Amino acid sequence: MKKIDNDLILRVLKGEFAERTPIWIMRQAGRYLPEYMAVRASHDFLTMCKTPELSAEVTIQPVDIIGVDAAIIFSDILVLPEAMGMNLVVEEGKGGPRFTNPIKSRNSLSTVHDADCSKDLKYVADAIRIVVQKLNGRVPLIGFCGSPWTILAYMVEGKGGDFVHARAMLYEEPALAHELLDKLARNSISYLKMQYEAGANLIQIFDTWAGVLSPELYEEFSLRYIKQIVQSLQPEIPVIVFSKGANHSLEKIAAAGASAVGVDWTIPISEAAQRAGGVVQGNLDPSVLFAHPDVIRSQAKRILQGAPKGKHIFNLGHGILPNTPVDNVKTLVNFVNSWRHD
Amino acid sequence: MKKIDNDLILRVLKGEFAERTPIWIMRQAGRYLPEYMAVRASHDFLTMCKTPELSAEVTIQPVDIIGVDAAIIFSDILVLPEAMGMNLVVEEGKGGPRFTNPIKSRNSLSTVHDADCSKDLKYVADAIRIVVQKLNGRVPLIGFCGSPWTILAYMVEGKGGDFVHARAMLYEEPALAHELLDKLARNSISYLKMQYEAGANLIQIFDTWAGVLSPELYEEFSLRYIKQIVQSLQPEIPVIVFSKGANHSLEKIAAAGASAVGVDWTIPISEAAQRAGGVVQGNLDPSVLFAHPDVIRSQAKRILQGAPKGKHIFNLGHGILPNTPVDNVKTLVNFVNSWRHD
Repeated sequence: MKKIDNDLILRVLKGEFAERTPIWIMRQAGRYLPEYMAVRASHDFLTMCKTPELSAEVTIQPVDIIGVDAAIIFSDILVLPEAMGMNLVVEEGKGGPRFTNPIKSRNSLSTVHDADCSKDLKYVADAIRIVVQKLNGRVPLIGFCGSPWTILAYMVEGKGGDFVHARAMLYEEPALAHELLDKLARNSISYLKMQYEAGANLIQIFDTWAGVLSPELYEEFSLRYIKQIVQSLQPEIPVIVFSKGANHSLEKIAAAGASAVGVDWTIPISEAAQRAGGVVQGNLDPSVLFAHPDVIRSQAKRILQGAPKGKHIFNLGHGILPNTPVDNVKTLVNFVNSWRHD
Repeated sequence: MKKIDNDLILRVLKGEFAERTPIWIMRQAGRYLPEYMAVRASHDFLTMCKTPELSAEVTIQPVDIIGVDAAIIFSDILVLPEAMGMNLVVEEGKGGPRFTNPIKSRNSLSTVHDADCSKDLKYVADAIRIVVQKLNGRVPLIGFCGSPWTILAYMVEGKGGDFVHARAMLYEEPALAHELLDKLARNSISYLKMQYEAGANLIQIFDTWAGVLSPELYEEFSLRYIKQIVQSLQPEIPVIVFSKGANHSLEKIAAAGASAVGVDWTIPISEAAQRAGGVVQGNLDPSVLFAHPDVIRSQAKRILQGAPKGKHIFNLGHGILPNTPVDNVKTLVNFVNSWRHD
């Protein structure tokens, strides 16, 4: 593998010396960038995901334009369950992605099969190979997947929301849920290994809907399967785990073997770092990027000062929002780049 | 005031002996009850709020049908800001209530004036008077309002969601936000006093969107104004404070003087009770009510066992969901009614 010139994030994840705090931004390839919108204007979202050249192009945009310390492959967490038999539909302005064949009971479980990653998700590996070639070692590339719980939530509910039916399944049919979660974990492992072999340097697991679960359900139905994935990838592959809204379990996420623990903005980063004990990632409120540059810098400074030296990857506490002013994002990245611990 | 026959909730809030754990359910007058749907079929939502006879009718339904230990006046948290100059629109199936004249800057603040409660919100007091008469002392009646932060969030954003612009205002124009929040707190006090004088026996403050704030912002922009309201009403009027998603601040909510602290389902009730120190209300995951009766009973039992004896009001951790099976709600209420601490 080619040496990475800016390997700050990889060094932080390995506990090695890093001269400054690295930064990347969740959804950094997205709807706030005019260059992204230009591509998006003539291609629908799933076409962009499934066309390696397009995916690669928007993946690299924020490295060039914003100057972040990592790229993250442009894709969607729901392409894995699509490859496992779910009918994925993404219609513009109709409330996000949805599945037209949600899992209602054990009977409908027969539609779910193991993904043939090298065939049905080859476009992801192809996109990664193009990105690696074009990045030419400038920054690391992050691969990703959704957590089994977050994917199950969509598979059962059919769409985003508060995932009432998915939660009800955990209470009412725990054996069925475990069966599906185990299948999702195994497929996620194959999928992530493919991404790593194609050239991704590290992995993030997005557990976006952890926060709708009680701490007990989170541990039994989400963290358990995240741990299964993490332990299959490590120690070779660094893995960042972001269970949004699961601040009650930061110690347990770290104990599951995560190389870094992602944190939303509803906990001070100092407290999160103390509880997780290792590397933390986060946690600027994305709405701060709609404020004045002075506010952005002062809020970023509070996080940089609160985080443990050398054990912090700067990020937002959730994905960057559509319509975020690009100049404000540059202000943030420049400030983080120039900041040093005393 | 007429004596209340079933005053369990009032006794728990005063720290007096209660022979069993009382229960009421957030949104108990709502879209899971066929009797409610029958009224709703011929009247739109705001007409029901503003027609005292209709509001009173659906307020009493769950007392008769489900057997809960309190009624809560059927209304909406947004009728107060409507009476303060906001244009409130509730269109069926169009994503919840919204304001057509959101507050964008200091300039648009001129549209917001003090509410003339006795005139513009007289329909709420009238509905309360009818309910009190019809209940004839069977159970207490709960009055309510939204927290100043939660109301501001809607006023600035115009609609529900993640309240990006409202959050950005707190960072960028804190003085403007404080000015508006203080006005909302003062108007909430007048509005709640009117409800109490009309016959409401206790108050709940719904801080539904506390969870989108960091702990620091929550304390500065939400809890501060909740405290202002609570301290104006007490000791005469018992006040339950429910800041959904603010489990990081349960101690502070209790310290602000709340008679009881509402809790969502993302924290064990035992931990919440220990941290709040006084009376807690909650915290069954509403999705449990879609499961088998055996599951409902076992999940309710866990909460009843975890909560401190005599210092607990049973409730869901959020509003009851549309399409919840009525028989399951009855199962829950019957189980809680029959359960006793050892």
